Amino acid sequence: MTTMPPFAALPPTPYYAVIFTSQRTAQGHDDYAQTADRMVELAAQQPGFLGADSARNAQGFGITTSYWSSLEAIAQWRQHAEHRIAQETGRAHWYADYTLRIAKVERSYAMPPLPSAS
Amino acid sequence: MTTMPPFAALPPTPYYAVIFTSQRTAQGHDDYAQTADRMVELAAQQPGFLGADSARNAQGFGITTSYWSSLEAIAQWRQHAEHRIAQETGRAHWYADYTLRIAKVERSYAMPPLPSAS
Repeated sequence: MTTMPPFAALPPTPYYAVIFTSQRTAQGHDDYAQTADRMVELAAQQPGFLGADSARNAQGFGITTSYWSSLEAIAQWRQHAEHRIAQETGRAHWYADYTLRIAKVERSYAMPPLPSAS
Repeated sequence: MTTMPPFAALPPTPYYAVIFTSQRTAQGHDDYAQTADRMVELAAQQPGFLGADSARNAQGFGITTSYWSSLEAIAQWRQHAEHRIAQETGRAHWYADYTLRIAKVERSYAMPPLPSAS
């Protein structure tokens, strides 16, 4: 069995998703990892935070999805002082490119249980 | 400069996102890769397809986001015969777990250009 990270929970819809798609530069490996960990820790303390998932491949292309109870919660997190510094450093040094989308989650599904082997 | 995959475009909002988060099993490496490539190729031919991004890390945890013009387009793709076979094989063999969310993209942002160096 593969060790699995916990998936972000599936709360009742509707709620909001921030989809952050990014290409890392070759710069700042350790600083970036430390800040990314800190941002996850800090986000989890914000009002309205519902969870997050993140995957980055060996070429530095990654997708992070975070989930929030409201647009207000997303706006507050975006303006958080320590997060703003991380965003600025990201634009200046860590990201070659990124896109960011804000979306209202309307439906969600978990993997259905497999039928029992007969 | 890192070689960058093309990011999915940012069409005018609103449109829809399918957020598929998954943990691969250790099974079927080649079959999986071949089918994943084929599904990207096939999705791109469907009415209403707007783009997709995908990242999977070395531990087999991945996020794929695909973008669609309408819920009807997503429903049609979900019912596509060849895609249904891939979904069934995925549940039986390739995925230890997954979650799937359907969300309406309300806003989007690209990385702002950096200020010129002075």
